[in-house]
Amino acid sequence: MNGAESLVRTLLASGVDTCFANPGTSEMHFVAALDRIAGMRCVLALFEGVASGAADGYARIAGKPAATLFHCGPGLANALANLHNARRANSPLVNIVGDQATYHRPLDPPLTADTEGWARGVSGWVRTASTADSVGTAAAVAVQAARMAPGQIATLILPADTAWTEGGVVGTRLPVPPPSQADPGAIRKIAAVLRSGEPALLLLGEAAVRAGPAALAHRIAAASGAGLLAQMFNARMERGRGRVALERLAYPVDAALRQLSGIRHLILAGARDPVAFFAYPGKPGRLAPPGCAVHVLAGPEQDVGAALAHLAEELAAPEPPLPDPGPPPEAARGAITPEAFGRTLAALLPEGAIVADQSVTFGRALFPTTFAAAPHEWMQATGGAIGDGIPLATGAAVAAPGRRVVSLEADGSAMYTIQALWTQAREKLDVTTVIFANRKYAILLSELANVGANPGRTALDMLDLSNPDLDFVRLAGGMGVEAARAETMEQFSDLFTQSLRQTGPFLIELAV
Amino acid sequence: MNGAESLVRTLLASGVDTCFANPGTSEMHFVAALDRIAGMRCVLALFEGVASGAADGYARIAGKPAATLFHCGPGLANALANLHNARRANSPLVNIVGDQATYHRPLDPPLTADTEGWARGVSGWVRTASTADSVGTAAAVAVQAARMAPGQIATLILPADTAWTEGGVVGTRLPVPPPSQADPGAIRKIAAVLRSGEPALLLLGEAAVRAGPAALAHRIAAASGAGLLAQMFNARMERGRGRVALERLAYPVDAALRQLSGIRHLILAGARDPVAFFAYPGKPGRLAPPGCAVHVLAGPEQDVGAALAHLAEELAAPEPPLPDPGPPPEAARGAITPEAFGRTLAALLPEGAIVADQSVTFGRALFPTTFAAAPHEWMQATGGAIGDGIPLATGAAVAAPGRRVVSLEADGSAMYTIQALWTQAREKLDVTTVIFANRKYAILLSELANVGANPGRTALDMLDLSNPDLDFVRLAGGMGVEAARAETMEQFSDLFTQSLRQTGPFLIELAV
Repeated sequence: MNGAESLVRTLLASGVDTCFANPGTSEMHFVAALDRIAGMRCVLALFEGVASGAADGYARIAGKPAATLFHCGPGLANALANLHNARRANSPLVNIVGDQATYHRPLDPPLTADTEGWARGVSGWVRTASTADSVGTAAAVAVQAARMAPGQIATLILPADTAWTEGGVVGTRLPVPPPSQADPGAIRKIAAVLRSGEPALLLLGEAAVRAGPAALAHRIAAASGAGLLAQMFNARMERGRGRVALERLAYPVDAALRQLSGIRHLILAGARDPVAFFAYPGKPGRLAPPGCAVHVLAGPEQDVGAALAHLAEELAAPEPPLPDPGPPPEAARGAITPEAFGRTLAALLPEGAIVADQSVTFGRALFPTTFAAAPHEWMQATGGAIGDGIPLATGAAVAAPGRRVVSLEADGSAMYTIQALWTQAREKLDVTTVIFANRKYAILLSELANVGANPGRTALDMLDLSNPDLDFVRLAGGMGVEAARAETMEQFSDLFTQSLRQTGPFLIELAV
Repeated sequence: MNGAESLVRTLLASGVDTCFANPGTSEMHFVAALDRIAGMRCVLALFEGVASGAADGYARIAGKPAATLFHCGPGLANALANLHNARRANSPLVNIVGDQATYHRPLDPPLTADTEGWARGVSGWVRTASTADSVGTAAAVAVQAARMAPGQIATLILPADTAWTEGGVVGTRLPVPPPSQADPGAIRKIAAVLRSGEPALLLLGEAAVRAGPAALAHRIAAASGAGLLAQMFNARMERGRGRVALERLAYPVDAALRQLSGIRHLILAGARDPVAFFAYPGKPGRLAPPGCAVHVLAGPEQDVGAALAHLAEELAAPEPPLPDPGPPPEAARGAITPEAFGRTLAALLPEGAIVADQSVTFGRALFPTTFAAAPHEWMQATGGAIGDGIPLATGAAVAAPGRRVVSLEADGSAMYTIQALWTQAREKLDVTTVIFANRKYAILLSELANVGANPGRTALDMLDLSNPDLDFVRLAGGMGVEAARAETMEQFSDLFTQSLRQTGPFLIELAV
């Protein structure tokens, strides 16, 4: 057994059975090993950023790591932006990066790069294997590291000779401790704060935005009069009818400041102390008001569900009914607006659907309009690196066969990793992609307005995606994905409904 | 004047007048400054790897740096693979990376990443501006660093507050020393080696593969009986009728070993001591035969043209006529083969054309068949990171208006940075792209065969680009580029000729 084979066997023994791959020469022994060993599902991507984003989406839905397979430093580099998003989502993920043979690297052949250095910025754990017989153990530790709460990225660099040399030893699956428990003293102190009647707000992140913990947070808020918000960007929210209608902290700084205005106690349940996405002249960076006390109920690496349960108990909070989100929404007709789209999405979204949201400006209104939708999950770009959405949707669909994934994509964002559509077609994934085709970088136009400039021709040209217009129907067709364009809400509803009746991917270019 | 404006003015004062950009929020002050200051040509890319590859192509043809504009660490990360190629091409290039405000970074907002750390692996010079009044000076030093022989990447990270704060000072253009001269004593020693009659070979790289220095090398080889080869991958060769017919060192290790077999003296003129692209079990990493002496005539950072002139003079080498490459080739008919394609390309390539070659397996035969083409330039992927070709062609076309750029792309490689086609359409660039659509990663199939495995279904699936077939005609059309598919050489000739008569980009999907 060579090192590559010990690696595949160790990954399988450690519970990693899916690999998003864009291999090269140095990974051929790994690829050859996959032929000899059953059980690893390999999903090919045409670009590394597709594979890393898909592994993130997979981890968010499957709750366990996939492997990726990349080729040398530059292959890893192409994956970094979506690994950055995965890091911010605390997604467990195991990168396998094939690289120059140990004895060949000092000769500095052309493809040699600083693989380890590039890996560090996104990885909680990085190791370069040095011998074939150590690959298995290293892989087992990598999986263990990835699965440590709250989840992190582990990168194992595999020089070609450690893959091809005989003497591989399969690593044993290593135990992963459960998330640590929050400090009971801190919980009692927070209970006292909530009983004081001073203005307080519970800010939820990580597992606290799942259905069960969010319901506990709702109980606590109802019993204490505290406000309740989810953090700005969340890896996976469970929402829709029968679940708490959680608003999120707003992206525009002024709106976020208004949400937190007057709060004297900010209680963090899996969330971080909130900060502005970017700095702006004359605006604060931290969003909590001056003088507001910040209390940590549970950190992202702790068992936030148990902490919320403990706090609810401490407060003897009754279980109030959830507010009625109103009658099931009906699909809108006529002109395409964010509000009409949100209502229509809420009406048509099938139960158990997974939404991958990279809708950027158009999508800001989608959240409240979908509270009454059937129960579903909602994933966001957590690290702000665009090009996340279509890959996230792809990986989620791999993790959740039988469920419909709805990929909401701004046109500018879509073009970063548009190659993911091909993987969706190849794997016959049930993904409905909606492209919001406004033919501009709309978010940057508003940011440019914030700068106070009266934009001229040069600036406008830099933010304009027309000239030529992108035709997503042809782009999708070029990668084997059926697609059509909608210019009214009725056309959208028809196409969306059609996509749900089919298997495999479908793309709707929505003229907004 | 704010920092952003001082940056734009300094770049212009330092001779940098072209910017390949994919901006984000933190770059809006730079974009706003471009409105107020005339003279900077901004070329928008839909993905950062397009911008970095285009800046590389621009530098290779213009002989001077362009700027790039990226957004935070993840934006830079998307650019790294083609920056790696640019580094291996010794292309001068100035990255401007907008980033979190200095005082906001410690709060670790979501898009914060290790921008400097990621930049280091590709940059000869990295600096993060800390105040608005130092931005101009830093930019001037960045341009100077980029232009130091043989050319390198300089990365200037611009925290948002250093861009928006008033007090910017325009930096003065800084002098760049000429390349150093080779040691006359070493040249005399090499002349003695060449006079000895022992088997010798001149290996050319960098500027030595341009027309003038290559002609000098030909004189030296003819006078001394030494062999003559270009290194494996070259940033820009001047070739075709009336120029030296330079063969290159082969990519397959066995072929390269045969080329160097029996050589006692290897003389490096701008080239590096040659090594295998990858290590293979039981094969050497250095390609020069054991016992072969390696002599450096001139390093990449030295004036290799002057060194060759000096050596030719030392040998009193006469000026022999160049070997006749034979009659001008004629376009082939019938089936599409590498040989037929090469002959046809040689017949149709217009004088002054620029070829961007990422043809991978199909292209290995193109070199000898195009010696008799009209004079042209030929650019290769120098760092082995695929996804270089279409961006390189894009940047070369920006640098050389009025000349036709021919972009030879393997289908697998094309998909890494296919978004570059949109920039070609937007800028109406005269680029003819030829996609070699074999619908597989052919190079990896041969590498897998090298591994000795008899590939099974899983392995073959990982190297197969059919299921579904990529339709490049639709992909190009989706980005505003006219395109057609050729299934015979006649169809190819007609389409290629048509593309030369038009302005703007054209894509031919060649069924190979």
